[in-house]
Amino acid sequence: MKFTPPPQPELAPATPVRLDRVRAPQYGRYLEAFVPGQVFVHPRGFTFHPATMLDFARTFMQCSPIYLNAEAAKAHGFPSLVASPQMVFNVVLSLGVQNDSEKAIANLGYYGARFLRPVLPGDTLRAMTRVVDRHDRGGGKPGIVRVQTLGINQRGEVVLQYERKIMVGPEPRAAASAPAQAAPQGAGGAAATPFPWDDAAAVDLGELRPRGADPSLSGANTYFEDFEPGNVIVHANGRTITDEHVALTYKVGNTHPLHFDRVYSKGLTGAMSGEPIVYGGLVFAWLEGLASRDVSENAVWELGFTEGYHTQPAVSGDTVAAVSRVLAAEPAPVLGDDLGIVTFQLVGVKGLSAAAAVETHGADLFVKENDKKDKGKDKIAAKIFEIERRLLIKRRPKRS
Amino acid sequence: MKFTPPPQPELAPATPVRLDRVRAPQYGRYLEAFVPGQVFVHPRGFTFHPATMLDFARTFMQCSPIYLNAEAAKAHGFPSLVASPQMVFNVVLSLGVQNDSEKAIANLGYYGARFLRPVLPGDTLRAMTRVVDRHDRGGGKPGIVRVQTLGINQRGEVVLQYERKIMVGPEPRAAASAPAQAAPQGAGGAAATPFPWDDAAAVDLGELRPRGADPSLSGANTYFEDFEPGNVIVHANGRTITDEHVALTYKVGNTHPLHFDRVYSKGLTGAMSGEPIVYGGLVFAWLEGLASRDVSENAVWELGFTEGYHTQPAVSGDTVAAVSRVLAAEPAPVLGDDLGIVTFQLVGVKGLSAAAAVETHGADLFVKENDKKDKGKDKIAAKIFEIERRLLIKRRPKRS
Amino acid sequence: MKFTPPPQPELAPATPVRLDRVRAPQYGRYLEAFVPGQVFVHPRGFTFHPATMLDFARTFMQCSPIYLNAEAAKAHGFPSLVASPQMVFNVVLSLGVQNDSEKAIANLGYYGARFLRPVLPGDTLRAMTRVVDRHDRGGGKPGIVRVQTLGINQRGEVVLQYERKIMVGPEPRAAASAPAQAAPQGAGGAAATPFPWDDAAAVDLGELRPRGADPSLSGANTYFEDFEPGNVIVHANGRTITDEHVALTYKVGNTHPLHFDRVYSKGLTGAMSGEPIVYGGLVFAWLEGLASRDVSENAVWELGFTEGYHTQPAVSGDTVAAVSRVLAAEPAPVLGDDLGIVTFQLVGVKGLSAAAAVETHGADLFVKENDKKDKGKDKIAAKIFEIERRLLIKRRPKRS
Repeated sequence: MKFTPPPQPELAPATPVRLDRVRAPQYGRYLEAFVPGQVFVHPRGFTFHPATMLDFARTFMQCSPIYLNAEAAKAHGFPSLVASPQMVFNVVLSLGVQNDSEKAIANLGYYGARFLRPVLPGDTLRAMTRVVDRHDRGGGKPGIVRVQTLGINQRGEVVLQYERKIMVGPEPRAAASAPAQAAPQGAGGAAATPFPWDDAAAVDLGELRPRGADPSLSGANTYFEDFEPGNVIVHANGRTITDEHVALTYKVGNTHPLHFDRVYSKGLTGAMSGEPIVYGGLVFAWLEGLASRDVSENAVWELGFTEGYHTQPAVSGDTVAAVSRVLAAEPAPVLGDDLGIVTFQLVGVKGLSAAAAVETHGADLFVKENDKKDKGKDKIAAKIFEIERRLLIKRRPKRS
Repeated sequence: MKFTPPPQPELAPATPVRLDRVRAPQYGRYLEAFVPGQVFVHPRGFTFHPATMLDFARTFMQCSPIYLNAEAAKAHGFPSLVASPQMVFNVVLSLGVQNDSEKAIANLGYYGARFLRPVLPGDTLRAMTRVVDRHDRGGGKPGIVRVQTLGINQRGEVVLQYERKIMVGPEPRAAASAPAQAAPQGAGGAAATPFPWDDAAAVDLGELRPRGADPSLSGANTYFEDFEPGNVIVHANGRTITDEHVALTYKVGNTHPLHFDRVYSKGLTGAMSGEPIVYGGLVFAWLEGLASRDVSENAVWELGFTEGYHTQPAVSGDTVAAVSRVLAAEPAPVLGDDLGIVTFQLVGVKGLSAAAAVETHGADLFVKENDKKDKGKDKIAAKIFEIERRLLIKRRPKRS
Repeated sequence: MKFTPPPQPELAPATPVRLDRVRAPQYGRYLEAFVPGQVFVHPRGFTFHPATMLDFARTFMQCSPIYLNAEAAKAHGFPSLVASPQMVFNVVLSLGVQNDSEKAIANLGYYGARFLRPVLPGDTLRAMTRVVDRHDRGGGKPGIVRVQTLGINQRGEVVLQYERKIMVGPEPRAAASAPAQAAPQGAGGAAATPFPWDDAAAVDLGELRPRGADPSLSGANTYFEDFEPGNVIVHANGRTITDEHVALTYKVGNTHPLHFDRVYSKGLTGAMSGEPIVYGGLVFAWLEGLASRDVSENAVWELGFTEGYHTQPAVSGDTVAAVSRVLAAEPAPVLGDDLGIVTFQLVGVKGLSAAAAVETHGADLFVKENDKKDKGKDKIAAKIFEIERRLLIKRRPKRS
């Protein structure tokens, strides 16, 4: 298509302003606009470039060589560098924010996340969300919505599935415009838009070779045998989060203004008022990175996570630190002799070191904040995150 | 070439310092060093890598899928991801700063910008500038220089042309060294260095397929039919600009110290004194990104812009927001049935939301700041930018 | 490998916390854990992606077209863009920090660095370190360790070798866990792990064509002939370092918490206490970038550097500036008629412009801070860095 556009004359002075026709497109949904069974196809998509994948891994100092070193990834049997599941999670969640949660008051929890296959250089992901459930409390109070989200590659394969609970307020009386997004499919829409969620979805790791890589690529003390249930692992370094979080929220495509619009944040009332809050996906990623050289350098796959809660917000200037606890270490005979499955609890704190957090709070650090009241325990103000995550980890190589 | 350099001994202690031979290379030009007709070929060039293109699009949250999703770009008929015209503009302008404006006091305006063909992964751009005009006011006062700049790819094709006006001071009495850059061609230099500017340049979009992509990739309310002259569109979110702007100025290659050297900025007198000012190209990019999901998700090309003015500076910590106004919506029969041309006025504000800006200032928000005096109106201190931009936008798909 | 993991039940509440089995893995080494002759193979590796290479060059505004412009790099005879030696240095040093210096008190100096061959897109580097020497001062005082480090590509070729001196404290009485890293080879380990250091290593630049590129790509005043011993070159612009340094430390993979963990930094006593200190490699890179358009735009190779000292720390908010001094300019007949070797002293300051630093401190700016006491001179508090660097620079093209 080739054409010569006419010159562009100045038009503004002669064009009347129609203040009677001001439009303010709104994104996200109020409580009433979530109907169980609805399926939303999120716009745009996200192409995973190898440089972006490397950049993400380094931004959060993920220490597994399969995210940092193309030769190591290939030695493990992957076709090339692998996008870290953490990046896949951050991107897929962000793709859905414009529809699902740009009006949300809070992200309440992550459940049943499963990473089903590697995302490789050049892959393009799109995301879809299904409304599972909606709890109204009435009286103008916020309700709770449960949604399932899928990340799907350009071949139509599901690479990630997870559920999350979101707190959403009802539509304010001063009615806003309708959501600008793709028309909801309605309660019976599942028929029109297939939603390939599978509770028993298989994980496909291709030609994985757990023993293919040089052991000097990763730590000597992070094999399956190094983890026993109950163990607490204090990760040495913390990380000060800077204003970078604003730019990173944009980078992963999360459109909620709470994370990047100070005028919006200052205009809020309540706990979220003030400085922009760090997008929770980024907090999770930094904590996971802080833990990575102690727990996942010899992991070949992140199976998934559940019971994930952001228990306090973080803002620019906060220094976060991480502690892991071993919840289970199970052989995985179906996967051969080289691998085991380890489940960790990952806990994040801010404003003090991980060592100080363990010393100060002891076993209470590992009690879910939501369970504290029932157990007659106080919440821990310095605790920002808790989750259970399950990894596929190499067994220690036998000395030949 | 293979050789063994000798060992590198320490030399500094035995090498006399020649303070009589201190050199301080200067860049940019004072007023007298602009001669109409001169053509400058700017050094270095800039290779557009697909990851850098994705990174730019995400840094400014440009919502068009052709900048974010390689599959979507290909479905539209592009060979691959496309560099956003905004990135091309930022880079081409920056390539010329060292010669054209590193000594400029202010960038006064952009005019007649045209994006003539896509910049694709692997393309390398260079830039050239021609001096069109110089207005001296004498008495040591700054003058105004009008220049035309071209961005040219490695095949010699012009991808962008635009004019800008720059305010430049005369050479201070304490004469600095001569500009270190490529020798100017002089008033008659056009003969020696061809300058392929063409007022009637054609736009070449190759095998563009406006209908090739899945409509779920972009918003449902941003087709040609959704825009009527006079409409005002308030973009919901703002963006807090952080210190990131310093690094981004470097990333696009803009060498003016006003944007990254606080010692320089603090040493200035007048309006620009203080904190480093955000490079205007970045401000434009953030505003355009804030507008993008409401106005350009279904645009397939940015034809160009004119009458662009940075009416107030922005600094780190400012929160910017954007309003668009439809100036014209014209069918484009020469391009077939699938496209129309929409011209928008884009206005940027800082320190308040876009909705508050419209409520507070009404129609005055859309009066050019330079015209305010003649109209007996006050300037709007919160207004930072105004421009007219013209986009090629898809018509709404017919329901089959 | 394809399998269906069982559902992930919540495990934390039922898993006892074993506070008797808290582990706190430690990284880096105390003084006693350095034994001359030890060879360490550092984990992970770092894949150089072309976008990451471009990104690095732009982050520090390196002005040589071979780092910015793929066409220019090829015209010079390189297969493609070249990673800047500065990036290679930053990465290789960082790869070793976890083992070598994560417990170091200070980095005392760089010596004998040599860049032996280009690092190209797709190359993956690993790093190895050998302990050369250890000086104990006893009485619980920190000692000085001298190490040699190699950067090695995926073909086993050494791309960089350098020495550095590190100040390290003895192990505190409250013994920490053993270093988690690959088992040291012990004093006699050299036999087991070859360490291909070569004092007379050759530089291999492949099919370098110093005259292959268009002269308009680089400055007209930065050829070999423009540099005479004793010359002082004041670089015009400074650069304000922002919090970006925290993210950049992560990006290059440096694991020392001094650079990114404010809780750690505030907990220190002495000169390093307070805000996170900018990683010295980044400071060097910014200074080199500030100098680049005046001294290295026409350099085709960085041969190496020596006598490099970080004489004061820099923190976020500091504005740094650079001065170069010509120490030697030698023809290099073995390399043909097109090249010469220039050795520069590069000095960095903070809080004032380079011009002000030369005016204020004169020749004393170029006296090594470590030599000041012997010469009866005061140290310069504003001086942050000094080094001697040797470049291979094009001779001025003959006018045809």
